[in-house]
Amino acid sequence: HSIVLLPGDGIGPEIVEQARLVLVAIAERFGHEFTFSSQQIGGIAIDETGDPLPQATVDACRSASAILLGAVGGPKWDDPSAKTRPEAGLLRIRKELGLFANLRPIKLFDQLADASPLRADIVKGTDILFFRELTGGIYFGESGSSGEGEDETAFQSMTYSRSEVKRIVRMAAQAARGRSNRLTSVDKANVLEPSRLWRRVAAEVMAEEFPDVNYDVVLVDAMAMHLINRPADFDVVVTGNMFGDILTDEASMLPGSLGMLPSASLGESGPGLYEPIHGSAPDIAGKGVANPLATILAAAMMLRHSMSLNEEADLIEAAVAEVLADGLRTSDLARGDSESAVGTEAMGAAVVAKIA
Amino acid sequence: HSIVLLPGDGIGPEIVEQARLVLVAIAERFGHEFTFSSQQIGGIAIDETGDPLPQATVDACRSASAILLGAVGGPKWDDPSAKTRPEAGLLRIRKELGLFANLRPIKLFDQLADASPLRADIVKGTDILFFRELTGGIYFGESGSSGEGEDETAFQSMTYSRSEVKRIVRMAAQAARGRSNRLTSVDKANVLEPSRLWRRVAAEVMAEEFPDVNYDVVLVDAMAMHLINRPADFDVVVTGNMFGDILTDEASMLPGSLGMLPSASLGESGPGLYEPIHGSAPDIAGKGVANPLATILAAAMMLRHSMSLNEEADLIEAAVAEVLADGLRTSDLARGDSESAVGTEAMGAAVVAKIA
Ligand SMILES: CC(C)[C@H](C(=O)O)[C@@H](O)C(=O)O
Ligand SMILES: CC(C)[C@H](C(=O)O)[C@@H](O)C(=O)O
Repeated sequence: HSIVLLPGDGIGPEIVEQARLVLVAIAERFGHEFTFSSQQIGGIAIDETGDPLPQATVDACRSASAILLGAVGGPKWDDPSAKTRPEAGLLRIRKELGLFANLRPIKLFDQLADASPLRADIVKGTDILFFRELTGGIYFGESGSSGEGEDETAFQSMTYSRSEVKRIVRMAAQAARGRSNRLTSVDKANVLEPSRLWRRVAAEVMAEEFPDVNYDVVLVDAMAMHLINRPADFDVVVTGNMFGDILTDEASMLPGSLGMLPSASLGESGPGLYEPIHGSAPDIAGKGVANPLATILAAAMMLRHSMSLNEEADLIEAAVAEVLADGLRTSDLARGDSESAVGTEAMGAAVVAKIA
Repeated sequence: HSIVLLPGDGIGPEIVEQARLVLVAIAERFGHEFTFSSQQIGGIAIDETGDPLPQATVDACRSASAILLGAVGGPKWDDPSAKTRPEAGLLRIRKELGLFANLRPIKLFDQLADASPLRADIVKGTDILFFRELTGGIYFGESGSSGEGEDETAFQSMTYSRSEVKRIVRMAAQAARGRSNRLTSVDKANVLEPSRLWRRVAAEVMAEEFPDVNYDVVLVDAMAMHLINRPADFDVVVTGNMFGDILTDEASMLPGSLGMLPSASLGESGPGLYEPIHGSAPDIAGKGVANPLATILAAAMMLRHSMSLNEEADLIEAAVAEVLADGLRTSDLARGDSESAVGTEAMGAAVVAKIA
């Protein structure tokens, strides 16, 4: 299995290195062979090549079994008048590799139960798997501007096609079958034409191919409420690119520890891309205090979804739960008690020790 | 002052009637003259005229001092293949009257402190005033569909012009001056062309006209997180139509009682439209149990914003706080103790009694 590492910016290199060491430990324990190659993306790629996604990176990714990404971006590249931005690299790699499905599991960790900003009685039992459409919608719609002075106008178009809706709804419905068999589709069909198409096509797919899956639809504004009010009522949720961006970030607050949440971006075939959902945290970059667990859990998703190594993935997840149960906390998890917090390397080493 | 009442559907008529009685009590106490006329909107208007916003309603609204709306919609008009929907009436009246600014105050009620789904230490002190742009953006952008079969595609365009951004940012910044002098603008400038225009124009307005107001920008996905994680850090928030729809509904969960939240929709001049933010609650319509307080608080906003009757508005808000302090609860507020809950009329009468 050849794995491309895209460390990126900020804390990216530190956390990806710990995930790599965990994968090495898995390879040793199970007798697998993983080969790693490191490529550039984001701000560092802009600095060194002028392009946030150099062609060499795309080529390496295309021929890989899977891709593990750290994070991109930082204040250094935030100039609004800049020709290109780190995020452009992320958007382009999604599109280039056809990674149309972004999977984001949102699950509480028993060991971090009181970390949630929500009341314990509300958040208890939350276990949602989001499928966010990732290569369509307003993100990749036609855009432009016109007029001058007071008349200056800018636009960008939200577009969905029948086939785009079908494939993501199918993938989400299949995942629902392996869980609690419930799927919720989120749209804004009372206002948006592409949402009406989405709703119609999703209903067809569900009726024809998944009559056994419990299916309902919720408007995006109502969903933003339900996630706070009764998050434990949802199982699998599927939605478009823009709504998914907002709702998955909202939902990411529920466990109370952004540093614990991985995500996977998958296509029809070809390599998947795995990453933590948190950003590049430039303020703590290079200090050795970043939490590597989300990236380590992303590596577990990679083993499961891109290599069908389920036992190995389970082992990583169990190891993470164990180090938490042992009381190990990076400073983001330590809450007020950051004195006793462990650093990035110590946390990674603790997970490796459990695996070995 | 001539006030147009638009009771609408579901619980609309019941709650608007209680707000009317409160306004009558105010008129008596302060020696004002309010005249009321009732007009149709939404589902009932479809049933009786075929149009969710009959011309007679538009004409009456145009010549009014202010408009008080109940709610629109219900399962009766939810058929996806229907020619028109109740919500279309709402969207059209916003546009017809040029109501480009939707104001949504989100404030905790001390008397309902433990109603929030958020932990008390997180939500404490939350007091946000949202300005949602209401007549532009993707809601009113060009839309359409093309192709057939598997190629069927639908689109809708998010559009913003310089002048649309200017007027809403100005209104929000002015409001900030009367509060804690802080304004946050929310966009998705790292992905959307109209958001980049929004960000640029907002920065210009703030630099040129409001250098005294503390100003910052936040991405919409990050804002969806902050509202859960640190809601008390925000004062005035301004954003576009779609993002505002999602974020204000998310924020509406924070006080833990949707039945307490009013909103105002204002234009450059002309009548404002005031309404509760909750829906038509068809399940409890006609039962006399709906909470009229959000509509009563909307009437208070009406007195303040459309008639400059600040003392009168303050009195209504104080009366609402007092009836809550007296322990009165409609069933939505009663939480598990709905036996002792009072009905719509009793709650309205209690507020009237405080005013008289
Ligand atoms: C960085 C940005 C372009 C990106 C997005 O909006 O998709 C990020 O928020 C994400 O969710 O991965
Ligand atoms: C009913 C619907 C069209 C409306 C909207 O999305 O604007 C509602 O959600 C609101 O926020 O007033």
